[in-house]
Amino acid sequence: MSGLVATLCLCSAIITAEPYSHVITSVQQNIAREELEIKSSDVSPDSPTPWKIRKQTLHGGKQEGVDLVTIDNGAISIVVIPTRGMGIWQVRHSDIRLGWESPVKEIVHPQFVNLATRGGLGWLEGFGEFMCRCGLESNGHPGQDVIVDNTGAKSTVDLTLHGKQANLPAQEVKVVVEKAAPYRIRLIGQIAERMMHGPKFDLRTEISTTPGSTSFRVTDVITNASVNPAEFELLYHCNYGAPLLEEGSEFIAPVKKVFPLNARAAEGDIKKFGKFAGPTPGYAEQVYCCELFGDNEGKTTAALVNAKKDRAASIRYSVKELPHLTLWKNTAAADDGYVTGIEPGTNYPYNRKLERAAGRVPKIPGHGEYQVTVDFDLHIGPEAVTNLIGGISKIQGNQKTDFIAEPQTPVVK
Amino acid sequence: MSGLVATLCLCSAIITAEPYSHVITSVQQNIAREELEIKSSDVSPDSPTPWKIRKQTLHGGKQEGVDLVTIDNGAISIVVIPTRGMGIWQVRHSDIRLGWESPVKEIVHPQFVNLATRGGLGWLEGFGEFMCRCGLESNGHPGQDVIVDNTGAKSTVDLTLHGKQANLPAQEVKVVVEKAAPYRIRLIGQIAERMMHGPKFDLRTEISTTPGSTSFRVTDVITNASVNPAEFELLYHCNYGAPLLEEGSEFIAPVKKVFPLNARAAEGDIKKFGKFAGPTPGYAEQVYCCELFGDNEGKTTAALVNAKKDRAASIRYSVKELPHLTLWKNTAAADDGYVTGIEPGTNYPYNRKLERAAGRVPKIPGHGEYQVTVDFDLHIGPEAVTNLIGGISKIQGNQKTDFIAEPQTPVVK
Amino acid sequence: MSGLVATLCLCSAIITAEPYSHVITSVQQNIAREELEIKSSDVSPDSPTPWKIRKQTLHGGKQEGVDLVTIDNGAISIVVIPTRGMGIWQVRHSDIRLGWESPVKEIVHPQFVNLATRGGLGWLEGFGEFMCRCGLESNGHPGQDVIVDNTGAKSTVDLTLHGKQANLPAQEVKVVVEKAAPYRIRLIGQIAERMMHGPKFDLRTEISTTPGSTSFRVTDVITNASVNPAEFELLYHCNYGAPLLEEGSEFIAPVKKVFPLNARAAEGDIKKFGKFAGPTPGYAEQVYCCELFGDNEGKTTAALVNAKKDRAASIRYSVKELPHLTLWKNTAAADDGYVTGIEPGTNYPYNRKLERAAGRVPKIPGHGEYQVTVDFDLHIGPEAVTNLIGGISKIQGNQKTDFIAEPQTPVVK
Repeated sequence: MSGLVATLCLCSAIITAEPYSHVITSVQQNIAREELEIKSSDVSPDSPTPWKIRKQTLHGGKQEGVDLVTIDNGAISIVVIPTRGMGIWQVRHSDIRLGWESPVKEIVHPQFVNLATRGGLGWLEGFGEFMCRCGLESNGHPGQDVIVDNTGAKSTVDLTLHGKQANLPAQEVKVVVEKAAPYRIRLIGQIAERMMHGPKFDLRTEISTTPGSTSFRVTDVITNASVNPAEFELLYHCNYGAPLLEEGSEFIAPVKKVFPLNARAAEGDIKKFGKFAGPTPGYAEQVYCCELFGDNEGKTTAALVNAKKDRAASIRYSVKELPHLTLWKNTAAADDGYVTGIEPGTNYPYNRKLERAAGRVPKIPGHGEYQVTVDFDLHIGPEAVTNLIGGISKIQGNQKTDFIAEPQTPVVK
Repeated sequence: MSGLVATLCLCSAIITAEPYSHVITSVQQNIAREELEIKSSDVSPDSPTPWKIRKQTLHGGKQEGVDLVTIDNGAISIVVIPTRGMGIWQVRHSDIRLGWESPVKEIVHPQFVNLATRGGLGWLEGFGEFMCRCGLESNGHPGQDVIVDNTGAKSTVDLTLHGKQANLPAQEVKVVVEKAAPYRIRLIGQIAERMMHGPKFDLRTEISTTPGSTSFRVTDVITNASVNPAEFELLYHCNYGAPLLEEGSEFIAPVKKVFPLNARAAEGDIKKFGKFAGPTPGYAEQVYCCELFGDNEGKTTAALVNAKKDRAASIRYSVKELPHLTLWKNTAAADDGYVTGIEPGTNYPYNRKLERAAGRVPKIPGHGEYQVTVDFDLHIGPEAVTNLIGGISKIQGNQKTDFIAEPQTPVVK
Repeated sequence: MSGLVATLCLCSAIITAEPYSHVITSVQQNIAREELEIKSSDVSPDSPTPWKIRKQTLHGGKQEGVDLVTIDNGAISIVVIPTRGMGIWQVRHSDIRLGWESPVKEIVHPQFVNLATRGGLGWLEGFGEFMCRCGLESNGHPGQDVIVDNTGAKSTVDLTLHGKQANLPAQEVKVVVEKAAPYRIRLIGQIAERMMHGPKFDLRTEISTTPGSTSFRVTDVITNASVNPAEFELLYHCNYGAPLLEEGSEFIAPVKKVFPLNARAAEGDIKKFGKFAGPTPGYAEQVYCCELFGDNEGKTTAALVNAKKDRAASIRYSVKELPHLTLWKNTAAADDGYVTGIEPGTNYPYNRKLERAAGRVPKIPGHGEYQVTVDFDLHIGPEAVTNLIGGISKIQGNQKTDFIAEPQTPVVK
């Protein structure tokens, strides 16, 4: 037995080897670093692929004071914005970029965003990320909803587009790196969306990747710090532009059901909702509401594939965690934002009052939590893309897609 | 006569000895200090009790850029937030803390507060202070009121909860310390709540204490910089949490009249409005409107006393300056904000339109001023608490309390 | 021919001599300088008049983080605020100041301005400039208007007073100085007023002057970065206070037509609309809408002349670029803002919905631009003022002024 015990101890020692940890921002410790660089040569010299992490502070104009963390894992570089809700500005590979050319060129500090402006569309003053979270108290279209106010009375309030989360700064940010294979690199951030007599949500997000990989994972845990249950809405607004998006690009996913969000989206053939046009001046957005099939474990994959089918980007997640997916087609002129959003969420982007009526506004119990994992990947070369599409087909199997041509706008009774 | 003159001169020389003065923030001189420490050994070495003052700048998350000044007088430490209207975050004594555990954990910079959000309740996104001022243009519940706009026309506007004052940064902050007994320490701040075609208020606040004392004084002077008279509302939101607040704690004051703010507060026996419950999940706030008796000079004392009656905190002020007191009972679960507010003010927290109808919105004449002094104290041990209660009883004397069971909601005619 | 060619080459060499250039702020290069001083002795030592440029960062209160650039050309100093839309705080000459005493004493950072407050009058919380731009999406009175939202649907929104431009920070700021006579000094700034699914305007402004001159020029180019045409409104809010403004001061311009904005402005004799009173407690603003005559090239001049007619300030611009001029008379008490605004613009300050109905909301074509040049000058001494008035009279010639006594409020059909 002693030999076995010794072996186990050895394993344990390896497994629990203290990972490297470095605090970038901390409200608790009153830390905010202007610049920082962390290199594999200092942290995990045995990593076969060198990597580095750089923390910058942006200056000038609306970028003044914005924190940026770039994780370069040797294959892709992931640019994260702690100041904007730990959103991801872009992901660069030598060959593909996840991201788009927003008309908003600056990485805008929340101090310059007024969410209420232009009828609750102020969120669009800062919108330029590859991926940002919409929520947590609410997301979707602006408009009125009823809340319970501090006095316990019902009060009509104006919700703003996509909520506050993408414009909240992280109060704790740190880098954690495993010192043993696979040398996983983690950027961990915490964001409070809290107020007295209102939502008390904490988001803990971990963006992680391994050196040399073209994939990365976002793992989010939302905690309801209140003793009372709390409604929430969470949507991952993942935005792809040229060159991956182009005339002939296609959204491919194991679709169970799809319907147009509104009359504009109902124009054209619903069966072709996944096909993209090139940049089209004057194009007004078309939005589609989808349910996806999952595999035995509930996992699904959605992808954007280019016209030649030799480049693709995918997201993989559980339909149990994110049961609804919104496809936002905005193939406008390049200067007006040529982009598509693949947006898995707990809900569709109708105003929360409508979503509640449709039964799509979940609650987190008092002191409860909600966990979501989303895997992002790049697929380069015809074979990789063929494999990706094959995997999606396998989830679909011989299950039919229910194409609904008319909007299914929820009705508040 | 010459001997007398000489003596007087000597006194005068002592009395007018130039106090120590140090500027922390100054818009006029373009000064903003990142860190600073001032010690008794350097300033008033003869002080029998050593003291120190520390100025910090907070970093990270929503605290980025917040100035904090901590006055440690040797017995209590008073944490003041120049960036948030010279509010007081907390006061610590070895034995008691004035303050509470807000669900808002960060000391939030005003750049991250949108007062208009959630139907005008955005103030609650930054609310965590022991003491903050509500006002000055208005305080109380959000809702519509009518103002005179720049064109001289009447215009309907949305007031936001508790006004702007608690989210305005001080433009001039300095420390002034007497070099002779009692070595009084003063933190002086100035805040402008001004706009063209609108209110033109300047608040000059002085937070002062003497080394070794458990008490401190807030002296505020509000000046109306306009030639025209201006309405104002001022309320001191003083908030106490555990452990001073606990099941069996009691609000004790010489109450002349009390009525519930609304139907919720009318639940239960109005005669027991001053008794507190322990943390109660799902508890909705109950608010009571009080008039207090004053002594011959108009001075009154209100206190929060713990269950065992061996710990208490008091505020003492003039009912001529602050004729109305609001008791905010919010004995919710700890994580949702277990707290009571003892809030002397010029008015109750009904929306200003209602308060005006009730005759409780005073005006400051053009170029006039309004002065308020509030003394805060701690009472430790059964004897000290007995003395405190005895003093309050003496103000009450044999005067009866008018307990009104129904809300007296003002009516706009 | 070779001699001629050589001469031309020489000229060309002189003309294209690389001017001095220094970046102050750059989002693209991630530059933000805290302090900076540029002197003629280092840059253009041959300039007969020494000049200097100073860049400061302001600290404390609502000024925290505000950038200020002062151009001292040896005769006048021009204080520009890159952080507030490249507005001009004041212009000082030994003898006159362009500017006024706003009740807002601080140069307020946009982070402390909520444009929506007080019924959309929040712009007045930061208003203290000699000159600021109102626009670009809209300017004028707050109130509702209809826009096309992200979904392509019509949506009613609340416009705020005078739009966003004056509270937007410049993202690129640089100084450019000619090394040869006339040694022109240019401060160039770029500001983005952009959002997804909304306006996509870029303003490039150049504020320039020559050493020793009492005049300066503002040249603005607004570019519509969208492929779609976009409505815009632009007004130059130029504000003059004491001592140039005084009892007996006069607004002098070649007026083609003038009418009062509203009933308040219709009080009194419309023919005397250009005469000013001294500080008058309780005075409510009076606003007049003017069309000016231009000369053969469309150039016009408007001036404020003091009572003794020995001091004046003028603005000169093209009525083709800025066809409407608003005269804002606000001769209130000094502490409430004793000021007049001479405001050439594309429109009058009625709410945009009304201005559109009146045909005064122009559009910039997709990828088009709109250029405006405004020349500011000081006139010192009776002769200079007489010359100024003579020049204005010459533009007027024998053309009559149409004095309209009643407001011409636009009507939305």
